[in-house]
Amino acid sequence: MTNRERIIEESRRLMNEQGAHNIGTTQISESLKISPGNLYYHFKNKEDIIQALFDRFEIEIRAVIAEDVVPPISTSRFVAFYQRSMSVAWKYRFIFGGLLHLLRKDNALALRYRDLQAWALENLASITIQLVRDGNMVKPRGENGHNSLALNTWLIWSNWIRHIQISSETYQVESTDMVAGLIQIFDVLSPYLDEQFERSARRTLARNAALDLED
Amino acid sequence: MTNRERIIEESRRLMNEQGAHNIGTTQISESLKISPGNLYYHFKNKEDIIQALFDRFEIEIRAVIAEDVVPPISTSRFVAFYQRSMSVAWKYRFIFGGLLHLLRKDNALALRYRDLQAWALENLASITIQLVRDGNMVKPRGENGHNSLALNTWLIWSNWIRHIQISSETYQVESTDMVAGLIQIFDVLSPYLDEQFERSARRTLARNAALDLED
Repeated sequence: MTNRERIIEESRRLMNEQGAHNIGTTQISESLKISPGNLYYHFKNKEDIIQALFDRFEIEIRAVIAEDVVPPISTSRFVAFYQRSMSVAWKYRFIFGGLLHLLRKDNALALRYRDLQAWALENLASITIQLVRDGNMVKPRGENGHNSLALNTWLIWSNWIRHIQISSETYQVESTDMVAGLIQIFDVLSPYLDEQFERSARRTLARNAALDLED
Repeated sequence: MTNRERIIEESRRLMNEQGAHNIGTTQISESLKISPGNLYYHFKNKEDIIQALFDRFEIEIRAVIAEDVVPPISTSRFVAFYQRSMSVAWKYRFIFGGLLHLLRKDNALALRYRDLQAWALENLASITIQLVRDGNMVKPRGENGHNSLALNTWLIWSNWIRHIQISSETYQVESTDMVAGLIQIFDVLSPYLDEQFERSARRTLARNAALDLED
């Protein structure tokens, strides 16, 4: 690993553990036992590091959502899709707790987040549109059924970590909490799924209950 | 209005406009044209004012959720219930943007919020259980269908304002945004509703598109 890479990884680890607002460049360089000068050679400041982490978060979440897929969508691919999106949320969980604060402080980041969100919502809707085409889902109710479903899954996905933090005395998220979040997302989609497809998806979910999470 | 009352109301208005983190006791007393001493006679500090506001928020949201109801639940009562919960969220919208931050700073408030949340989730589940009993809803899918549905509506309700803030260049919420949030909540419940009940509820929703919002 290059030093730049080590700084990014250590920042992610520390911010996930203690929250982005509690971590500064001093802690990062101390934790890595490198000089502040070495850190500043690679990054102007903490915001610069956060942007580099957001780059990776964005690449990974876009890769999950836009995974090259040939229809029809199988249950295992359907489940894997939401599982992987939870894994990415976990890996960059520091982003979600203080998201509003992070965006308010960095307008370029705010613009990027809004672009990512708009893009994700469109692609989430494409997935359910494809499921309907495949005959594995009925058209969601409401005027903009697919968009509304996409937004609701996005709302739950993007607020799950913060919800767990708010609900916990220690404000900590545990890896096991992510499985519960996955079920919440699945339950928004499940009423529209073909019964057999749904049962099969739930079995796959139960089998892979332990998500593949990166610390 | 007593001075105590005026301080509470003005704090709510200012915090809703500018965010709780941007408002201090100085702005509140200046805005009311009262002396700081007058304010401190009624409240020890800003946290004390926020607690008084949370008292009211809690009373109002509990009143909405636990409204004395004789079954069956009619469509208009069903719709009014979610409309009123959006009105309360709007009235105290400063709470939602910086919730995690507010709770971290005040442990007593955090405990109260978690109690309120647990109580609300239980009562939200009771509503859908009653709808099933009334024959206006089918049992939600999943192992803990009613609880999962309650949690999903709660997640959307409690994160809607923050979602709008994050999505907006000005970080402002407009009263019209609240109607869109109401539809999102309704769309989580709607797949399980009896078709006629759902159509009737959507008509009622469309008729009362302009929510009764207090500024």
